[in-house]
Amino acid sequence: MLSKKYKEMLTKKSVIRELSEFATARGAEIGYENVFDYSLGNPSIPVPQEFTDCVIKLLKEENPVKLHGYSPSLGIPEVKEKIATSLNRRFGMEYKGSHIFMTSGAAGAIAHAVRTVTEPGDEVLTFAPYFPEYIPYINHSGAVLKTVPPQVEDFQINFAEFEKMISDKVMAVLINTPNNPSGITYSEETLKKLAEILEKKSAEYGHIIYLISDEPYREIIFDGIQCPYPAKYYKYTLTCYSFSKSLSLPGERIGYVAVHPECPEAETMVVMMGQISRGIGHNCPASLFQLAVAEKADLTADLSVYETNMNLLYDAFMELGFTCVRPNGTFYIFPKALEDDSVAFCKKALKYDLILVPADSFGCPGYFRMAYCIDTEKVKRSIVALKKFVETEYPNR
Amino acid sequence: MLSKKYKEMLTKKSVIRELSEFATARGAEIGYENVFDYSLGNPSIPVPQEFTDCVIKLLKEENPVKLHGYSPSLGIPEVKEKIATSLNRRFGMEYKGSHIFMTSGAAGAIAHAVRTVTEPGDEVLTFAPYFPEYIPYINHSGAVLKTVPPQVEDFQINFAEFEKMISDKVMAVLINTPNNPSGITYSEETLKKLAEILEKKSAEYGHIIYLISDEPYREIIFDGIQCPYPAKYYKYTLTCYSFSKSLSLPGERIGYVAVHPECPEAETMVVMMGQISRGIGHNCPASLFQLAVAEKADLTADLSVYETNMNLLYDAFMELGFTCVRPNGTFYIFPKALEDDSVAFCKKALKYDLILVPADSFGCPGYFRMAYCIDTEKVKRSIVALKKFVETEYPNR
Repeated sequence: MLSKKYKEMLTKKSVIRELSEFATARGAEIGYENVFDYSLGNPSIPVPQEFTDCVIKLLKEENPVKLHGYSPSLGIPEVKEKIATSLNRRFGMEYKGSHIFMTSGAAGAIAHAVRTVTEPGDEVLTFAPYFPEYIPYINHSGAVLKTVPPQVEDFQINFAEFEKMISDKVMAVLINTPNNPSGITYSEETLKKLAEILEKKSAEYGHIIYLISDEPYREIIFDGIQCPYPAKYYKYTLTCYSFSKSLSLPGERIGYVAVHPECPEAETMVVMMGQISRGIGHNCPASLFQLAVAEKADLTADLSVYETNMNLLYDAFMELGFTCVRPNGTFYIFPKALEDDSVAFCKKALKYDLILVPADSFGCPGYFRMAYCIDTEKVKRSIVALKKFVETEYPNR
Repeated sequence: MLSKKYKEMLTKKSVIRELSEFATARGAEIGYENVFDYSLGNPSIPVPQEFTDCVIKLLKEENPVKLHGYSPSLGIPEVKEKIATSLNRRFGMEYKGSHIFMTSGAAGAIAHAVRTVTEPGDEVLTFAPYFPEYIPYINHSGAVLKTVPPQVEDFQINFAEFEKMISDKVMAVLINTPNNPSGITYSEETLKKLAEILEKKSAEYGHIIYLISDEPYREIIFDGIQCPYPAKYYKYTLTCYSFSKSLSLPGERIGYVAVHPECPEAETMVVMMGQISRGIGHNCPASLFQLAVAEKADLTADLSVYETNMNLLYDAFMELGFTCVRPNGTFYIFPKALEDDSVAFCKKALKYDLILVPADSFGCPGYFRMAYCIDTEKVKRSIVALKKFVETEYPNR
């Protein structure tokens, strides 16, 4: 007897996966370089050589028994210290190593954060548009994810709808800034207002409503701005991070949860995460990568290509008369489709070898997402295809 | 409100952890080289240089975007192929890559295996003595672990007790061979009899009872024997493996589940494991280590020190008149204490700087475990302390 729950999940086809499969099949036909595959958020730039050199140095010089030995279940202490120091310097925080829990990427971080602050049946709110994987991440913990409708004018938070939905069942709010799929960072004003409501509601309901802040795109920021650090605005924040995007090593599964030092029992929360690990088979990210990211906590890959690509695409969309909020981070852009049914729109685009993802599964029907973590040269060629697509399929707009 | 379940776990002190903390504190006093710390099963031999060279070569020569890129959720296809090929050659199996699911060590493997074949409330049976982490591994999945009492004469399976406990609620049986803590491998005869009962009971209850076989010590085998491969004897077997012990890299968290090709829907089970990952924040072991273990699927560290240590300790125990089954694998030995209360016995041993673990938490009171993954020189010195301990504390045996 196989598990019904997990077997049933197989019948639900993922739109992104189907599109990605189409792209691969089409690539076999016409050459993958001719398929404008904007489906997957897989970094396209190399890890910095400095990081690779650091990993090789560890392999050559460290005692292998220590280097590859079991990590303590909360993470390697000196790694946690270095990450705390980096966050403190960059964001004016006061983390100690004991506030940091090392995880297998942001997925592992969210898995631990949600289990720490919810009981089965509790509600977690997130804001559309949202990363569709939040649904299994939250719901399989036993908590229940509910989604607040989007504010399409600017993809900041729709506070009117949020205030309607926040009840005494809500134990956590999950945000993602810079945001996948919108490419928007939450402004200081948004974060202040969010904090104000969470504080008010925490007091009203007599329990803390935690903020789980998912920030894997924190370092991919455009126009030289800095992305406001959510934990600065609300003390009951669990910051979830992954080095996948900043260092371009998504396959190595390395990230952390940072618990705001002013959370009651902040250090206990980290120790609880160690207990959660035992039950879900997590047991720490790879030691080698823990040690390497600690050495290079402030390093990033050369992320500038994403801004170049965004500007090319945004200008093209403006020229073609699309409705589109200009991204200020990530490697996503999120325009409105040229017809209400964005699935139909994206299907038509396939004829032009443009792989666009309809945003129904992001909680924002009528829009579509493009992950422009591809070569700039290919972006340029794709814009030619985009123009042809729009002119041919939507001539009378 | 923090999760009650995980917060309560913090109040239960782990005996092994307390002992390990004692050893560290005592080490600070008298020098760690003078503390005979047999508490932790942390490999003490280095990863083979050939493996390190392979990792460095990958880092230097592979395209970094591919090397560190996202692994497909079931594992990297060519890695799965190579592991299947290695298992087929060594154990006469017929795995395809599609029967292999890559995991973060054996803990990750068991987390996925148990969720694949059980529903919440189903029972899983295991045999004492057992690894205490099986309790959270199984119980946090929603299934319920029940433990069959030990057969202390030889630490094979106590079939009389097993047959009493196997009911139609039992959906899986979890074994560990070579065994932590007994050091025993299940004989061919044991595995055949186990298979016979499982087949009979599967037919009687009208559902498959799966065998989850946890084999991280498979390559640590003494006297030149080969450890029988459980899946050879029972087709409904999910083999859980970790490279932690064979390659001495426990911190890198790399292992797999191999689903027996004759399981109905064997490949579907692997795809289900990909869905399970989404809910528990697993999302694959590190790409770099997937690629490296695939290159070196048959390589092991020089494991001979464990056999040397075992022989020294076993001979000492025999000389001192202990009851002890001679281990034929792992790096554990599991003698009977010299008084019924093995906790009291192990406490007395601390006076001689001998850190022994009482086996109550392994489901086998009256025994104790020693993890002899330490230097042989230290083992020799510890035997002097052991003799003094026994002669002083138990003079009139």
